[in-house]
Amino acid sequence: MNARRRADLPHELVFLPLGGTGEIGMNCYCYGSGPADDRHWLMVDLGVKFGEDADPGIDVVLPDIGFITAEKKNLHGLVLTHAHEDHLGAVAWLWPQLECPVYCTPFAAQILALKLKEAGLDEQVPVKVMPVGSKFRLGPFGLELVSVTHSIPEPTALLIETPQGRVLHSGDWKIDRTPVLGQGMDEKRLREIGDKGVDVLVCDSTNVLREGFSPSEADVAARISEIVKQAKGRVAVTTFASHLDRIATAVRAARATGREIVIAGRAMRNTIEAARACGMLTESGRLLDEEEFGYLPPDKVMLLCTGSQGEPRAAIARIAEDIHPHVSLEEGDLVIFSSKTIPGNEKEVSRVLNNLARLDIDVVTGEDDLVHSSGHPRQGELALLYEWVRPKALIPMHGEPRHLRAHRNFAEEKGIRDVLIPRDGHITRLAPGPLEHIDEAPFGRLHVDGKLIVPGEDGPAKQRRKLSFVGIIFVSVVMDSRAELAADIELITEGIPMGLEGDLLEAAEQAFGSTPKPRRKDANQLAETIRTSVRRAADMIWGKKPIVKVSVVRV
Amino acid sequence: MNARRRADLPHELVFLPLGGTGEIGMNCYCYGSGPADDRHWLMVDLGVKFGEDADPGIDVVLPDIGFITAEKKNLHGLVLTHAHEDHLGAVAWLWPQLECPVYCTPFAAQILALKLKEAGLDEQVPVKVMPVGSKFRLGPFGLELVSVTHSIPEPTALLIETPQGRVLHSGDWKIDRTPVLGQGMDEKRLREIGDKGVDVLVCDSTNVLREGFSPSEADVAARISEIVKQAKGRVAVTTFASHLDRIATAVRAARATGREIVIAGRAMRNTIEAARACGMLTESGRLLDEEEFGYLPPDKVMLLCTGSQGEPRAAIARIAEDIHPHVSLEEGDLVIFSSKTIPGNEKEVSRVLNNLARLDIDVVTGEDDLVHSSGHPRQGELALLYEWVRPKALIPMHGEPRHLRAHRNFAEEKGIRDVLIPRDGHITRLAPGPLEHIDEAPFGRLHVDGKLIVPGEDGPAKQRRKLSFVGIIFVSVVMDSRAELAADIELITEGIPMGLEGDLLEAAEQAFGSTPKPRRKDANQLAETIRTSVRRAADMIWGKKPIVKVSVVRV
Repeated sequence: MNARRRADLPHELVFLPLGGTGEIGMNCYCYGSGPADDRHWLMVDLGVKFGEDADPGIDVVLPDIGFITAEKKNLHGLVLTHAHEDHLGAVAWLWPQLECPVYCTPFAAQILALKLKEAGLDEQVPVKVMPVGSKFRLGPFGLELVSVTHSIPEPTALLIETPQGRVLHSGDWKIDRTPVLGQGMDEKRLREIGDKGVDVLVCDSTNVLREGFSPSEADVAARISEIVKQAKGRVAVTTFASHLDRIATAVRAARATGREIVIAGRAMRNTIEAARACGMLTESGRLLDEEEFGYLPPDKVMLLCTGSQGEPRAAIARIAEDIHPHVSLEEGDLVIFSSKTIPGNEKEVSRVLNNLARLDIDVVTGEDDLVHSSGHPRQGELALLYEWVRPKALIPMHGEPRHLRAHRNFAEEKGIRDVLIPRDGHITRLAPGPLEHIDEAPFGRLHVDGKLIVPGEDGPAKQRRKLSFVGIIFVSVVMDSRAELAADIELITEGIPMGLEGDLLEAAEQAFGSTPKPRRKDANQLAETIRTSVRRAADMIWGKKPIVKVSVVRV
Repeated sequence: MNARRRADLPHELVFLPLGGTGEIGMNCYCYGSGPADDRHWLMVDLGVKFGEDADPGIDVVLPDIGFITAEKKNLHGLVLTHAHEDHLGAVAWLWPQLECPVYCTPFAAQILALKLKEAGLDEQVPVKVMPVGSKFRLGPFGLELVSVTHSIPEPTALLIETPQGRVLHSGDWKIDRTPVLGQGMDEKRLREIGDKGVDVLVCDSTNVLREGFSPSEADVAARISEIVKQAKGRVAVTTFASHLDRIATAVRAARATGREIVIAGRAMRNTIEAARACGMLTESGRLLDEEEFGYLPPDKVMLLCTGSQGEPRAAIARIAEDIHPHVSLEEGDLVIFSSKTIPGNEKEVSRVLNNLARLDIDVVTGEDDLVHSSGHPRQGELALLYEWVRPKALIPMHGEPRHLRAHRNFAEEKGIRDVLIPRDGHITRLAPGPLEHIDEAPFGRLHVDGKLIVPGEDGPAKQRRKLSFVGIIFVSVVMDSRAELAADIELITEGIPMGLEGDLLEAAEQAFGSTPKPRRKDANQLAETIRTSVRRAADMIWGKKPIVKVSVVRV
């Protein structure tokens, strides 16, 4: 039957985001080529999102890729555009569902290898290391990793050529003509790609609300240098652990002022080791361990550390609380937050800034001075990329709905007529013809809870969220064969105000007592009667309805 | 003995914040006059803070005023500087502890009356209505409510004159020379107060990180007018429910363009009613109810509504989700967020903005255009107030530690030599002599949990927070007189991943089975053995250690 239908159905190129349109993070995009009943698939990026307060106890959120898992015989591979967590972090969790080869640049391969090793998958996952600029083929997909600039080594855009059409998947990028490290944005190649014709540009929307151009890493480097030169006491620089350009900048600023460099934070050490394994940051000399910090004179040391997002266990948070085992700062010292606060982390960052203020330590942040520049394109950069690539159509990705909408409006203003905003799970036909939403695929979220992967929608986090508002009461009832209490009713509470137990127990006892003996024999019914009664009593006194669980045991 | 000691001790004026130094909100300041063993007290403001995610199920946080409660025979009164929640919101909760007269302006009295009525206290609390500009005396405190400008009607600074010295307690203020409503900043009186000499200025620090001057309400009004004039579809304006200047601005902009005004949100209606009861906003004409919204043409309606902080149940959030019973917006309509996002509310506001983007509705926020101005002084305004008042010493209040520190540095730069940052609970001698931290008082926080006031530190919210991370397991064991199981062990979980029950039950059974019979007779010991075993089993499989409660019943 397949053979017959296949002949009838048109060959198409489709786009299916399973994460990354409608929220920041958790990027996972699928491209399908062929007829609707026999599509061949390519996956681009497989990242995580960090947990939010609304999902307590969940640090990591994954896309539910079940739809592609079911199609994995037709999945030719996973290509990672760069090594950021939100593009690569889910591989070690979800690869066992896919069992496909993974293609990425040398630096991303180093970062991925660490994660696969932790997950015990390093022997199993076929990681194919492709230098920036590589061209290769996966089934019907002709691919090319095009060098761009971003906030991590070896960022790439992905050119995807299929019999149906050509797509440029931008990945994360900005236009930085003077990056501190790396090959830079390959404008020449992007223009050539534009000359050959691009049907669809699938493009980063993160900074579309900002006009103009992002400052270059070189501008940031100049300011940081200047600030470090003027500093009289200790200097600490905190930035994203993976931001090697910024790490290199800090290292140069330290070397120029005769400061030793101390590294604090495992993730930053990992970045540096991965970079050195790829031949980067090789001239930076010896980087000291945090144990050595205390032995160096204030004006001869720079600390490079993690924690720019206020993570409570990271180095700078512990230093600000004055509980770090090896590093302490004092009045006259300076902390540079060479970072921006990712939305949602404001409170945590604020806590660190306040703790530093209590210690009377000076702080410079990206809001005060040019000590950070984003890795995403502002409007000026987007307009330039449009000029280079001249896409017939555009799909905004990477962003919340308001960014995607603003990107659509901006692209239309710039003369791109065919713009469509897909949502996660939407199947969009990219070619032939204009962009069209043609189908939907199941999608969702998974939570990493402890070391288990659990459902994101109706999983344990949802139960715990409810617990966190109203607490829980357990009632234990033991009944003998005559349907009388064989022991006193026991009541245990957690998360309920003190002093309610007596009234709640009384409510349980009354509910038991007022249930006629014959009806007590239905244990479920009896439990429900007691549950309702205890819950109502709690509501009367407390004004909240806790979760009540009743166990009725017969002996 | 008191009489003897009293003669020995110097008469002092002291300052004791119980809330409001070190965090935004929950303002509560005490002034004490007399010798250390017989101080007479005045309380200024008694506000709430809104609950944070770290305290689940807590919407409102109160200062623990137990120290003053214990001294209430010497408490002469509570003066409220204005009607904002963070200055007045705790009165209805805590007044029964104080039982003192409450002094405030007519508008604040209206707002307070609503709260006291809800709490059933309206008959009991002696509220003394004092017009702006009033002078009155409470025990040793000569008081004067000086007119300032802020973001609510009738904001006042409080001049406090005692035998030991004169203090100006700024309250919340900005310098707005062209407010939309109200008497304006009484610069003349403030200069006169300065001429007579001010020992200490206790001063708002909220916006000290910003240079220059705040825009005036008149500037904001002009922009909002212009934006409304150009709008072609429906216009919704959301702002703080208590911001009457802004409400008046929106009303005028609507009237100027022939739009009817629909009000959505109970808190905003309350503000408007309180204002009208005080003779304000009387010329604004009929304000319609939300039921009437749908009957008006798009270009003939303006919605004024609550929800500017992303509160999920407020009008604009429900409109953005398209689930409001009476109001719906569509493509071509405009929402003006005439507000700033209070730190901590970013995610919630972002959710609303994203939902509006999904509906393709245009949005203008305070970040895009001059549709909001803060009610707190920037550096230029602070410098002017210093000039007018010429204080000998300054105490920064209202702000997180980084604001207080920045205010100290700024005041010192401006030539105020004696600046001291107290923390909540610190007793500072204001006069005679230089500022000095002389003692500490107990202080803390209380949580409003449902309708109960519970401890803030080790209360139910802390237990619930723990529950929210790790869930809970309840194990019920019923044992007969031979120390054998009288029924199967029962296990109930909440907030734990599915599929663990079998292993957890087995762990409980094994722990029971491997406990020798004689040792089972110690029910506590047996429960602890089972608890540890179940917890360990959960950790092995899940990687988390849940709360485990074991009930051992003997029959």
